[in-house]
This record gives sequence, structure tokens and C-alpha cells, in this order.
Amino acid sequence: MSVEERLRELGIELPPPPKPLGAYVPTVQVDDLVFVAGMKASIGGEMKFRGKVGSDLTVEEGYEAAKICALNCLSALKEALGSLDKVERIIQVFGFVNSAEGFNQQPKVLNGASDILLKIFGEKGQHARIAVGSNELPEDSPVEVAMIVKLKT
Amino acid sequence: MSVEERLRELGIELPPPPKPLGAYVPTVQVDDLVFVAGMKASIGGEMKFRGKVGSDLTVEEGYEAAKICALNCLSALKEALGSLDKVERIIQVFGFVNSAEGFNQQPKVLNGASDILLKIFGEKGQHARIAVGSNELPEDSPVEVAMIVKLKT
Amino acid sequence: MSVEERLRELGIELPPPPKPLGAYVPTVQVDDLVFVAGMKASIGGEMKFRGKVGSDLTVEEGYEAAKICALNCLSALKEALGSLDKVERIIQVFGFVNSAEGFNQQPKVLNGASDILLKIFGEKGQHARIAVGSNELPEDSPVEVAMIVKLKT
Repeated sequence: MSVEERLRELGIELPPPPKPLGAYVPTVQVDDLVFVAGMKASIGGEMKFRGKVGSDLTVEEGYEAAKICALNCLSALKEALGSLDKVERIIQVFGFVNSAEGFNQQPKVLNGASDILLKIFGEKGQHARIAVGSNELPEDSPVEVAMIVKLKT
Repeated sequence: MSVEERLRELGIELPPPPKPLGAYVPTVQVDDLVFVAGMKASIGGEMKFRGKVGSDLTVEEGYEAAKICALNCLSALKEALGSLDKVERIIQVFGFVNSAEGFNQQPKVLNGASDILLKIFGEKGQHARIAVGSNELPEDSPVEVAMIVKLKT
Repeated sequence: MSVEERLRELGIELPPPPKPLGAYVPTVQVDDLVFVAGMKASIGGEMKFRGKVGSDLTVEEGYEAAKICALNCLSALKEALGSLDKVERIIQVFGFVNSAEGFNQQPKVLNGASDILLKIFGEKGQHARIAVGSNELPEDSPVEVAMIVKLKT
């Protein structure tokens, strides 16, 4: 099954390709690796969640925010590659959670990104992950997710 | 001298391979690179240190915590590779220090990871490093360490 | 035009190669990739800015600090490579902004790094970027910047 078919089966519509917030590009391809810039919890330029997980937002809301971040990464990838079927493996996910004081469940929040990658890509979606807290994130996004991806050769 | 012999000489016993806290895997190998997920200061699932360096913990305790994180990375690597003798170079270490307000000695803390890598691997352990503070980390770990490693070909 | 000529044209003098704050090295080259360690806002060992952007420092000061961090990365690269003309592409920039409570303009701060890379390298300077806030950074630097670079083969 192609990734596109899998997305349809899961009822997932990718958000429009996110526009960089600064003087950088959403993806850089080097040989068969693609580096995807950090993405926030917005769709079409509109923030879907704002604030700190553990005070402003629940873990469940953070989970949803992380999912949006991951889908923004995939949207940027698709824009760059033409098709997500070119992905051989999601290698690494960097996840930053805008964390209230005393909030230590960053992994549960970032499962929102990891789970959707596994659903969409299966084994190819199994990635290493760096999950940490951050005291503030761009535009007060509750989560920021970046990734490194390997392409089929 | 093999890395295993070196570990014995140094009296270092690797912790058991750490279990991921979420929907990811401890390592991903892509050609001759291995990406190791962020590891915390636990041994066999039990946190050895908790809290913020600079208030709950001293620099020395943070240093010990960073060492445990690095050894967890090596344990995950060994689990994946069979032997640490396959390591050609520790390329990059990402280190996050759970930091109390006003604490700015993250490099001293992360030397706990860097020093042990140099002791074990010698020149092959010389890595680039990103050392930053974080307001909160998973399970209140004082340190989180991830790495990228190159294998012999 | 060579990168050196471009630097002269822009009136930019690279800072002296920064010395690591700990037990690591400023750059690691692996095949045609170079990983540059996290750099702070110092020149010749002297901090040029300190403190949190959004309280101690303005966005404009943070922007200048980010520029210094990026130039330190380039200085380390030049020290390692002999010449910046060997750079094929700036792949990825990691940027951490020492952020006051409620400060969410990390991208504007890190444009100080991104803009100078674009000015110096043109299209080759177009990078993916991870921009996040941090509650504390080494030596109270307002910004820390690291990068991954591809070399010409």
C-alpha cells in the first residue's frame, strides 16, 4: 500500500506545506538524507494550540499538538519530494515540549508525533527520538518537532 | 585493546539496555551511521538522580548523571551492534541539563558524558557537542544525552 | 567569488577559532559531513552578550548575539577545513535562545544566524533550522548555535 493510500485509509489529510518563520527553508536534502526544519502546531499559518503543557494544556492536548507538528513535517517532506513513498525510514525525531514547571511527561506528549509516524509508515516509521522540555517555543507553540529522514535509493 | 577490554580495565559495567519511554526505538542505523535516542539517568528502569542541577543537585551529581546517560547510550549501541568495537567514531553528543534558574555550567555537567566517552574510546571518542539547559526533562532526569555514531566499514 | 572574498566584501572578520568549554572538539568530519559543536556569543573567549532575550536583552541584541554564534561556527569550520570554499551546503542549524518568560520570538533572534549565512554563502547557505527556547545556556549566553555542513566532494 502506498503512503498516500495509507493516509486516506487513516482519514488523514496533510496540512498545507508550512511556511518558515524565518530565513531558512523547510527541508534540505543531502544525498539520500532529508533534514526537516522544526515545525509547530499550526495549520495553514493558524496556531491550533498555544501554551505550556502541564498548565495551559493537558497531556492529551499536547499529544494532539505533537501530531500536528509531525504532520507538518510530512507536508514539508511531500512538498519537497513530490511523494512520501520515497521515504525509506524516519531516522530521528527531535521533540521539544513547552513545559510548565514540574511537568515531566514529555515522552507522552511526543507520542502524538511518534504514534502517527508509526501508523502511517509502519516499520519505516520507527525512529530514534530526543524528547526534552523547553521553557518557551516560537509563537507559544506547545510542541516543536523536527526530523531526519532517509530516502529510498 | 578492544572496547570490552577497556571497559573491564576501567571497571565500568554497562547498564542494561534502556527501554524507550515512548513509541520509538533506542537506535536507528542508516548505512554506517547510528542515531541513538535521548537517554536519561536511570539504570534498569530506576532513576539514579532526579531534579535540577544548581538547586536539587550539585554540579558533581549532575556530572555523575551525565555519565549514566552516556553509558545508557553505549548500552543501547551494544544491544544494536553486538559489540562496541564496531564504533569508528562518536560524532556528536546532544546534552540537555535540567537547569535551576541562574545555572550556567551545563558544560561542566556534560563533561560527565564526554569524559567517559574519551576514557573508553580514546581519539575515537572525540565528539562535537551541543550543551544546553532545559527547564524540565522526562521523569525529572537531571540530564538527557543522545548521540550520533559512525561505524567501521 | 570565493567565500573569503565575499567575507571581505561584506566587511566581516571571522572571530578567532573558539575553544571548547569542555571535553569535546569544535568540529567532527565524517566523510563529506561536518558536525559543528554548539557555539556561544563570545569573541576570543570574551562574552559579547549575556542574559535572557525578552528581559535582559532586546530582540535586536539577541539577533546580534546569534550572528556571533554563527560566525564562531564558521571560524571553527575554517580552522578545521583550511578554507570555507570547501563548503557545499549549510544543511541544518540548531538554535537555542536563552528566553525570558513569555518570550516567543526565537525565530527573529535566530535570523541573526540565518541571515549572515545567506549573505555569505548565498543559495549554499539555505538551511533547515530548529529554533527553540532554553531557560539557561552555558555562561549565560543569550544564544547557542550548532550546525551540520556538507563539503564539496
